[in-house]
This record gives sequence, C-alpha cells and structure tokens, in this order.
Amino acid sequence: MSTRKQSLSGFPELLPAERAAEQELQQALESTFRLWGFSSIETRAVEPLPVLAKGGEIEKELYAVARYGSAAPAELGLRFDLTVPLARYVLENASRLEFPFRRYQAQPVWRGERPQEGRYRQFTQVDVDVVGKETLPFSQELDVVRTMRAALASAASLPPMRFELSNRKLLEGYYEGLGISDPVPVLRAVDKLDKLPRAAIEALLFDLGLTPSQTSSVLALASVEGDSQAIRSGVRALGVATPRMEEGLEELLAMLEACAADNDRGRVRGNLRIARGLDYYTGTVVEVFMEGFPGLGAVGGGGRYDALAADGRTTYPGMGLSFGLSRALYALLAAGALSLRGQSPAQVLVSVLSEETRRDSEAVARTLRARGIPCEVMPTAEKFGRQIRFADRRGIPFVWFGEVEGEVKDIRSGKQQSASASTWTPELS
Amino acid sequence: MSTRKQSLSGFPELLPAERAAEQELQQALESTFRLWGFSSIETRAVEPLPVLAKGGEIEKELYAVARYGSAAPAELGLRFDLTVPLARYVLENASRLEFPFRRYQAQPVWRGERPQEGRYRQFTQVDVDVVGKETLPFSQELDVVRTMRAALASAASLPPMRFELSNRKLLEGYYEGLGISDPVPVLRAVDKLDKLPRAAIEALLFDLGLTPSQTSSVLALASVEGDSQAIRSGVRALGVATPRMEEGLEELLAMLEACAADNDRGRVRGNLRIARGLDYYTGTVVEVFMEGFPGLGAVGGGGRYDALAADGRTTYPGMGLSFGLSRALYALLAAGALSLRGQSPAQVLVSVLSEETRRDSEAVARTLRARGIPCEVMPTAEKFGRQIRFADRRGIPFVWFGEVEGEVKDIRSGKQQSASASTWTPELS
Repeated sequence: MSTRKQSLSGFPELLPAERAAEQELQQALESTFRLWGFSSIETRAVEPLPVLAKGGEIEKELYAVARYGSAAPAELGLRFDLTVPLARYVLENASRLEFPFRRYQAQPVWRGERPQEGRYRQFTQVDVDVVGKETLPFSQELDVVRTMRAALASAASLPPMRFELSNRKLLEGYYEGLGISDPVPVLRAVDKLDKLPRAAIEALLFDLGLTPSQTSSVLALASVEGDSQAIRSGVRALGVATPRMEEGLEELLAMLEACAADNDRGRVRGNLRIARGLDYYTGTVVEVFMEGFPGLGAVGGGGRYDALAADGRTTYPGMGLSFGLSRALYALLAAGALSLRGQSPAQVLVSVLSEETRRDSEAVARTLRARGIPCEVMPTAEKFGRQIRFADRRGIPFVWFGEVEGEVKDIRSGKQQSASASTWTPELS
Repeated sequence: MSTRKQSLSGFPELLPAERAAEQELQQALESTFRLWGFSSIETRAVEPLPVLAKGGEIEKELYAVARYGSAAPAELGLRFDLTVPLARYVLENASRLEFPFRRYQAQPVWRGERPQEGRYRQFTQVDVDVVGKETLPFSQELDVVRTMRAALASAASLPPMRFELSNRKLLEGYYEGLGISDPVPVLRAVDKLDKLPRAAIEALLFDLGLTPSQTSSVLALASVEGDSQAIRSGVRALGVATPRMEEGLEELLAMLEACAADNDRGRVRGNLRIARGLDYYTGTVVEVFMEGFPGLGAVGGGGRYDALAADGRTTYPGMGLSFGLSRALYALLAAGALSLRGQSPAQVLVSVLSEETRRDSEAVARTLRARGIPCEVMPTAEKFGRQIRFADRRGIPFVWFGEVEGEVKDIRSGKQQSASASTWTPELS
C-alpha cells in the first residue's frame, strides 16, 4: 500500500484485498461494540465552520466546503474528528436520546495537513463514547476503556495493544499539592516527555516559574508507571496528598484493577507521563499503542470530559476513546504484517464447459450461494487450464467442474474430488 | 426521520434505532454482493475538479473543497456519484487489478442541490459494477442485474423491487430503421415520458424534425412493455428491423429470461420507455422501483457503458447499477414502514443490586457476551423498578437479576424465570 504512488498525496486508497482486511477489522470492532451495548451513529461529513472552531479559533488544517462557483464565503467545513460532531449531535437530539448514551462511530475525518510519513488528509477513526446528562457514573467511564480493549482484542489481524492510563485529577491534584497554581501549562510540558529530552522539559518548566524542587517533583511523578501496585507505591513514595489527587488515584487504580481482571489480550498499565495536554480532559486519560510498532506513536487515545457538550441549561459529561483505524491498518500493511487474500471474495470459480451449458454452471453457483459460499461463474467458456489460471489470479482457491453433482479442484494442492454443491464445504486455510 | 427538524437542510442524520435499520439493510446488500464474487472498494471523498467535470463542463451542483483560509482557487470537489471515482480508480490501478473487475461500493455522495422533498445534499449510494478490459462478456453484464436483484431481495426490510429493463441498441437501432439520423436527442425526449404529457413529447419530437409518422412509431415502441413474450411480440408487431436493433432485442430478451428463471422476490420486466437519456449508456439500461411507493420515482438505475474508462491505449467497458440506499431508507422511515427497535443494541440489561455486587453483574455480562448476546450493565445500583424502566426506555427486552445462575425477566410479557447465563438464549420477537 505505502509503496504505491497515489494520485492525490495524503488520500490513500486500498486495493480490493487490502480493503477486505480493513472491512474484516472494522466488522470485528463494530460487532464487539454492539455486544457491549453501544449503538452506531453516523454524522454528516460537513459541519458549520463555527462548530469546527476550537475555542473560537479556526484551525489551519481545516478543509472548507462551498458550492462550486459561488462567490459567497464558505460556511461549511469537513469534520476533523468525531468528537465535535458527537457533541453537536447530542445537543441537537438530546430530547430523543436516552442517557447515558453509548455510541460508536466509524467514519472518515479530514485534515489539510502537509502529507508526511503516517499523516493523512483523509483517514478513518473508530470512536466509542458514553455521554451522560449532568452526571456520568464511573462505571460508564470504565466501560469505555474495557469495551475498546475487548474490541481491539477481538480483531484477529491486530497485534496486542498496550493501553497506558493516567488521570488528570491525579496529576493536577499533585501539582496543587506542590503549590503550583496553574497546572495546565505544566501538563502540556509533561506531555512532551516522549518527544523532547528531559533537559528541554526542565527548561520549559523553569520558564513556567517552577522552582528546581517543584520541577524535580513533577518529573518524579511522570516517571511512575506500571500495574496498580506500582502506581500506588510509586505515588505514595512521593509524599504528596490532596483530596483531588486521591480521587484521581482511586479512579486510576480501580480502572487498572478492572482491566487486569478482564484478562483480555494485550497489556493495560498506568503511566503518569500520559497527560494529553492539548485537550480539555478532566479525569481519566488514555493512550493506546500497538505492540511491536514502537516508532508509530499512539494509535488511539481519549479520556473523560466533564463537559463534552453543554447548552446553557444542561451539561453533558462524556468519556471517549478514539482508535485510528487507518493509522493502524496502513502501518500493518506497510510492514507486510497482514495475510491478504486475493482480489475476489469468491471461494469457488464455477467453470463453464461451453456457452450451451452455462445454465448448468449457474445452477451450481446458485446452490453454493444459497449455502453461503461465495462464488463466481467463469465469464467465457475457455480451456480448463485457462479457467484454473483465471481463478488463481483472482485468489479463488477452488474450481468447480460439471454440474451440481460434479468435481471440485483445490488449486493450491492440485487435488480434485467428486462433490455435490448441495453438501460440499470449502476447506479454507 | 423526515418530520424532525435538522440543523443543516439537506443533510439528514439518523437516530440510533434508524441507523440500526440502515446498517442491517446495508449489511444484507453487501453480504449478497460478496456471495456473487464482488469485492468492496472505497474511494476518497474528494476528486480533482477536472475529474468531476462531465464532458468538460463543471456541474453547478458541485461542492468545492479548499484549505480553509487559502486564497488559491479550489482544486478539489466532493464526489457526486460513485461511477466517476470508479473510472478514475480503474485507470490508476489497472496494472494491479484482474479483469473483469467486479466491485461494489457503498459510500456517501454530495450534491449541492436546492433541498426539496426527496432531494439530499449528502446521501449514500450502493453501486455494483463489472469493468472489463477491452471486452466485457454479456454474462458479466447479466450478472450485475442478477446480483443487484438478489441483493435487494435479500434485505428483509425492503419491499419487493421492480426492475424495468430496456436496451439502447434496441431503441437506437429502431430509430435508425425509421430513418432518424441522430437518435440521442430522441432518447432524451422519450426519457421524459413519465414526467410530461404525451403531447409535450410529441412537440419535442416535432422540434427535432421528426415526421408525424416517425413520431408515432417512436411512441409506439415506447409503449411496449412486459415480460419477454410481450416485448418480443410488441416489437415484432412494429415491423422495423435493423442488425443493431436485433442485437439489442436479443440482449434484452436474454436478460428478462434469465431473471425470470432466478425467481427472486420482486418483478423484472421490459419497458421500452426507459431510455436514461442523460447518460452515455450503449446497451442495457435499467431502472429500479420500490413497489408500493409510486410517487418516489426510481430508487436505482444504471446500464452498460462501452467506454466506462479509457486512457488512450486501453478501453474499459463497464456495466453498473446504483441503488439509492438513503433515498429508499428515508422513504420507508417517512412511511413508518420499518419496525424500529430501541436505542440500544443490547438484548439484556444486567441489573445491579448494589455497588458491592457490581462484579457479579459484570460476570453475568461477560458470560452473555462470550456467547454473542449483547448486553449492558446498569450504570448505578437503583431500585429494581427503576432498572426495569431504564431497560424499557432503551428498548432492551430482558433484565437479568442475580448472578450467572440467576433469574431473567422478559419485560414485554412480565414473565420471570430462573436461568443460567451460560445456557440461556433470548427469545426475540
């Protein structure tokens, strides 16, 4: 995929076999979301530009949409994530929804960024959120993490995932305990620990007015990681305690313990370096990494918002996790880590002896399809050797000869046997 | 759906229960397409504006896409159908595809039309096409019609569909036999027979220079309709015969007979009023109508292109049918013709006696989910009456009480029984 020249940079398209892998992955995720009681929604591709403005400022990477040839300024833009449309959808339909509203959404988003390795202008996100009305019980917050974890574990084509959890209340409460009055810029500095050397972060914290002792305490917390035991003892060893910090610690420990008990594939650990400083999270924060792809960065993330949406009368807190389906899939394709099938979803090519007997071949296909076995019928009557090569090029493993009571050849092994289209079942490797 | 005020006119969004119906419909179609050996592809939402220009002219209803705040003129537009992107995709990937290339595609398209009854600015199309390289055997052309018919018949929520078939070679060959030198404007006039009174069509044909006798012969052909017998005798009775017309007639009769033999739900008939005059079809043309919705117009259509795509060296003929998923679904929703479930996909709400026993409830949910039964766990411990009402509002039919060996209540009948989460299966109505 990645080695192919694409006609529009940043807008990759998949070949049929790659798309089949994407579909299988997406279906596994969606089916798990439904098992956990999440409903699907889709939102329109465009939003009014003011809705897309974050904090009043319109982001540079936005795509504007306008009627072609119209002189009026654009009023619409393509969505850049699935959280902004969710907040708008919830406000618009609040009276028709039951809360907590558990929804998943798998749709493309667009960002007009300069294309570079791992950056795309159109890519598919898969989001799971729970939105409450005024309140959102912790049980629901926990469910979002467990659901996404179960979903990613259920997708056979994905490697194990590592969930790294932190909590804004814990971090901010700890900073308060150190006498730091404005915790948000500190969070943003800590968030850069994976990208910049430690000395650069110390300089950032110094610029924020932190004393050397505060700086060293902030970095000490950021180095705490591991299972619930390691988090508890690591945090306790720092000797700081505030009510807010305690609340965050309890939430984090509860989440780590619940996930450990689930015993799904992949790891879940605490990591107090995770701050997600650029978003307005107010509790749990999460990043998701694909094991074996250390250079890829996070393939998912999210957290808790006390005010995902608000309309003046009512506040809607939310907890959501976003999985970068395209990001993960394209990395797996580029690494050759997926076993792709051929172009055709068919398992059987029904051969055609002559145009006069095409109806017999069609009857075989009808019988197989009625039993859920995908097949194609040879487009033109040709020598059998050519029909076998036709199947091979399309990645179809079996060729049927004759009528419903006929013979079937496994072109991988070359083995041919008598078979009835009413009872035979393909053995797929 | 249709009665709800939407915040952006022409961009309807569905509530979760409506979306579930859409998903079920789409999944039924896609699963049948795969049974017939069609691969899924998706294309990016945008195309370069010149690709979207039809015959050199850019359509007025196009949406242009540009980086927000950029002074440069827009270079991209949102796709208005799935055929133009398919042709571009085939040319771009010709060396990596096997032909005939059988693909389906279910994606939204955008048209900046003035919103009115039944017109949307974003809507989902589901297209099935076969693309050949230089040649496309008739067997493949036939397969497209049969596949779409089987797919629509497989979707339980759709009413029976009526496929109306015609053939451009038949119509144009007949016009040639009448001595009409330029058949395309005649086709365009005939195409309006369902919208304008007969006298208006006669006036259009007169303006094109047709004699009264030619006009009456053109309208006589347009009134031929019915099964293959009716088409054969109706056409023969007109006493015109040219080689091109014969070829078209044979194709049409073969298609009608093959579809009749398939015996799928819904009707397939010939209708020589179908011309699809505005597109560059060169053989079979099809329109699809939803029985019981006479005012809706066609919900699908398509036909054969001798040159779906061409790159100067190679020509790619194609045959495709497009189904207006949104168009059909919104009409069914507006008519109240779908039985919608509740907001939640869960079949069971696992009640929670107290926060202390939440883990027992989670164990019940884990056991049910492992068996493929979707469920939710009550977010907060409350009185059982409130938990039952919670399930009811979300459309969840069963409430589980106690542990894995517990009791389950069908809240529709009120019946409660002992059950094991390891063996019990919900009876859904």
